[in-house]
Amino acid sequence: MSVYETVRTKRATRKFSDQPIAEQDLTRILDAGRWSGSSKNNQPWHFVVLQERERLAALSECGQWARHLAGATVGIALVSGDWMERWPVAFDLGRATQNMMLVAQEMGIGSVIANIYEIEKANALLGLPADKMCYSAISFGYPAELDKFTRPPRAGAKRSFVEVVHWERW
Amino acid sequence: MSVYETVRTKRATRKFSDQPIAEQDLTRILDAGRWSGSSKNNQPWHFVVLQERERLAALSECGQWARHLAGATVGIALVSGDWMERWPVAFDLGRATQNMMLVAQEMGIGSVIANIYEIEKANALLGLPADKMCYSAISFGYPAELDKFTRPPRAGAKRSFVEVVHWERW
Repeated sequence: MSVYETVRTKRATRKFSDQPIAEQDLTRILDAGRWSGSSKNNQPWHFVVLQERERLAALSECGQWARHLAGATVGIALVSGDWMERWPVAFDLGRATQNMMLVAQEMGIGSVIANIYEIEKANALLGLPADKMCYSAISFGYPAELDKFTRPPRAGAKRSFVEVVHWERW
Repeated sequence: MSVYETVRTKRATRKFSDQPIAEQDLTRILDAGRWSGSSKNNQPWHFVVLQERERLAALSECGQWARHLAGATVGIALVSGDWMERWPVAFDLGRATQNMMLVAQEMGIGSVIANIYEIEKANALLGLPADKMCYSAISFGYPAELDKFTRPPRAGAKRSFVEVVHWERW
């Protein structure tokens, strides 16, 4: 599948089937994140992989819209240092996340992001050292509803080209 | 080109040839950014496209490592509202950026990011309204050195899998 088609058809998947994710496919997803570019090649990320049902359920209670994590086949918690006043860290985590989600999408594996609101609770759950924090997590799994995974983008879901794109000046 | 291969071989390109970027290819790149997922579908981005040589040169002087913008065929300035204390905005801009860079890479177009340090200067250059800011910009162009664009990843350039990946807990 081309990158362009993958980007064009990428939808958020929140309901997952029981089909397991093969170990080599999970490795591909994690490598895609690990290989991402970052500011000054800092690679400001750690990935905590969750597959135990109870831990996924506990993490799903650390964010207001994180419920989908409870039903994910695999959750990947994004861990970094303190991001406050450090724009590039959040930006670079976004880049690594997109790499992982697109590589998963190409393999037929759906995904969606959960922002973590109760950061202290999540940090404790993951046993993070004091200088590390969990800001968000990604749910991965084969889609329970295949028609939603493959259907074309919804019209009007995105702001129009002319609204978003400016030429030379605002 | 598969997503996986594109992610695996994506390198930063800082020197660009004179070959122009076709309008339809630039549209694909911009659409890839525009179509990116974002927290609550907020789409917190505007893209200012720069192709005038003088403006690219001026923007290249707004960041310590932004010199490559002066030689870019196309620069895309990322514009959003104030990001302070809003982690998802920086994260989502990173996601949109990665979409654009990967779609470009698939078409043989190189890219690299410049963080903008002199934000006020960049805002004025782009004529932004008071509630908008430019944090970073992406240089795009066909690579001047094709061997650097296509060579495999440098060994040791990224932290190892075991250093980055944790299982269930830190």
